Amino acid sequence: MKKIFSLFTLFLVTTVFAQKQTSEKQQRFVMVVHGGAGTILKKNMTPEKEKAYMAGLQSALMAGYMVLNKGGSALDAVESAVKILEDNPLFNAGKGAVFTSEGRNELDAAIMNGKNLAAGSVASVTTIRHPISAARAVMEKSPHVMMIGKGAETFAEQNGLEVVDPKYFYTEERWRGLDRTRKDDSLKKFSSDSSNAMLTIKEDQDHKFGTVGAVACDILENIAAATSTGGMTNKQYGRIGDSPLIGIGTYANNKTCAISCTGHGEPFIRAVAAHDVSCLMEYKHLSLQQACEEVVLNKLVEMKGEGGLIAIDTAGNVSLVFNCAGMYRGVKSSDGKNQIAIYGD
Amino acid sequence: MKKIFSLFTLFLVTTVFAQKQTSEKQQRFVMVVHGGAGTILKKNMTPEKEKAYMAGLQSALMAGYMVLNKGGSALDAVESAVKILEDNPLFNAGKGAVFTSEGRNELDAAIMNGKNLAAGSVASVTTIRHPISAARAVMEKSPHVMMIGKGAETFAEQNGLEVVDPKYFYTEERWRGLDRTRKDDSLKKFSSDSSNAMLTIKEDQDHKFGTVGAVACDILENIAAATSTGGMTNKQYGRIGDSPLIGIGTYANNKTCAISCTGHGEPFIRAVAAHDVSCLMEYKHLSLQQACEEVVLNKLVEMKGEGGLIAIDTAGNVSLVFNCAGMYRGVKSSDGKNQIAIYGD
Repeated sequence: MKKIFSLFTLFLVTTVFAQKQTSEKQQRFVMVVHGGAGTILKKNMTPEKEKAYMAGLQSALMAGYMVLNKGGSALDAVESAVKILEDNPLFNAGKGAVFTSEGRNELDAAIMNGKNLAAGSVASVTTIRHPISAARAVMEKSPHVMMIGKGAETFAEQNGLEVVDPKYFYTEERWRGLDRTRKDDSLKKFSSDSSNAMLTIKEDQDHKFGTVGAVACDILENIAAATSTGGMTNKQYGRIGDSPLIGIGTYANNKTCAISCTGHGEPFIRAVAAHDVSCLMEYKHLSLQQACEEVVLNKLVEMKGEGGLIAIDTAGNVSLVFNCAGMYRGVKSSDGKNQIAIYGD
Repeated sequence: MKKIFSLFTLFLVTTVFAQKQTSEKQQRFVMVVHGGAGTILKKNMTPEKEKAYMAGLQSALMAGYMVLNKGGSALDAVESAVKILEDNPLFNAGKGAVFTSEGRNELDAAIMNGKNLAAGSVASVTTIRHPISAARAVMEKSPHVMMIGKGAETFAEQNGLEVVDPKYFYTEERWRGLDRTRKDDSLKKFSSDSSNAMLTIKEDQDHKFGTVGAVACDILENIAAATSTGGMTNKQYGRIGDSPLIGIGTYANNKTCAISCTGHGEPFIRAVAAHDVSCLMEYKHLSLQQACEEVVLNKLVEMKGEGGLIAIDTAGNVSLVFNCAGMYRGVKSSDGKNQIAIYGD
């Protein structure tokens, strides 16, 4: 009788504990994506275009969420979400990337695993369908963190990644964008102040810092970040922005947060933006939201660094902070939240 | 009489103030250089070679110091010092750079001004005699921070930098080094652990992380950092290390410190090494030395990140910290200090 009672107690305790664990864990797994930030104004948007952007964000969010829902890792989730955005011609990454001044599509991507600070990145690749998967291959199948250009392409190819003709990345919309930007840029002037020369950008212009990114927190409380971009329209001279730079456009550390940035790359680099958020949390004990606001709304604004970021911590707290008109963004969590937004509140 | 007295008082006050300023300032201007770190063992060094390294470091130190001594900026000083090291075939930067697996010399460099967080960098350039000056041109003559490959070369050329035939960088010594490393590398195995796959390096091997760098504090209490490298011998796939990455191998911020790193690039990237030192000072209020030790002797050691760094703050405090056998290094300050060293104490 005593034995039966003990077994029953054990059963009860185990069940309650399992339920408690499940409910606790379910609050924790969270998927977040972004599709770029900038002067995204409702007045410049058609209802059809808005709908298409929302659908694009939702499907990336869903892809990442499904991974988490099956008990998959944050790392797998962010890669899955970013691949969907890379395939979507609406967003400036993979298919749909903007053109350089030479009429090419040069792609950058980075990924980082908060669990072990493993990181990988590629820059200036032109033949890899999913640059984010190339970044992951660099992280997992090489002793390196960053590879660029032809070398990175060779490595990706040797590691079985899907190679496409550079023409694959062509879209009519982006080609017209290059034409427009070429005309605009010829009118722009550099105001070379004592810090980096700054591009003067017209206030009301519908400019966007096209980048896509994802951060996630999985059921095991690991976090990861991924970012992918086609860079700036009409970019010259092999310019590299913040996206593929670890600690700058992309960072993940289970101690603090996982972050993917989108914005005017140069100030983000000079601010070492993503790592600064992490350090404000680790050393100054700011909350995730406070740290993100300090970097995006104070430091970057002071440096004329327009843009934003998405961030998550291992408790599943999420911050979506931007200092411009809008940021394509979405959050889906295991407690039922599913939010997609474009403009500021 | 009163007027004469007043003038005399003014003269006295001005003179005393100027002297006070000079004596105060003179304690402050300091030049620091490094020429790489690693398993640099006395047993592997000939007296002639040792003498040549010491002389190379001294002449770079002197070049930077002379700039500061004339009231020049920390930025000018670090560029001058690094140019001397780039011209010296003993060091792995500019002339004397190591070869990639394809038998090319691909050069990386970065520079940062602590006064205004302006930064510039180039990676994978093959025709610029002084990559550090190309990095400075990116900082001052473009709206960008980082440029790579052919684009960076075109930019440098358009901005009047000295262009050389890639053969200029060839040295017999480095070519033999490539041969040796090719043989060694074919014997190495990747142990792909859960973090980035790590190269196994023989304990007793005389391997060096060839990088050169400089930090300085000028008479106006501004600080700056510069780093230049040929990367890793036999590097493949367009691999980029920490040197040209802002916040990682190179960082400067008048609020905290200026830093140039040298070491096994990958862990330095994953640790966001230079910026981490800065954040430990800014947010955790560690001293320069404490912050450098925390990053180099604790965090990097934990990540198997062999190497070191040189650092300075606006008070002219200097830290030279490394977790390997030796680091080519030198310090010269306006209070008469002139130190060159190679091995650990």
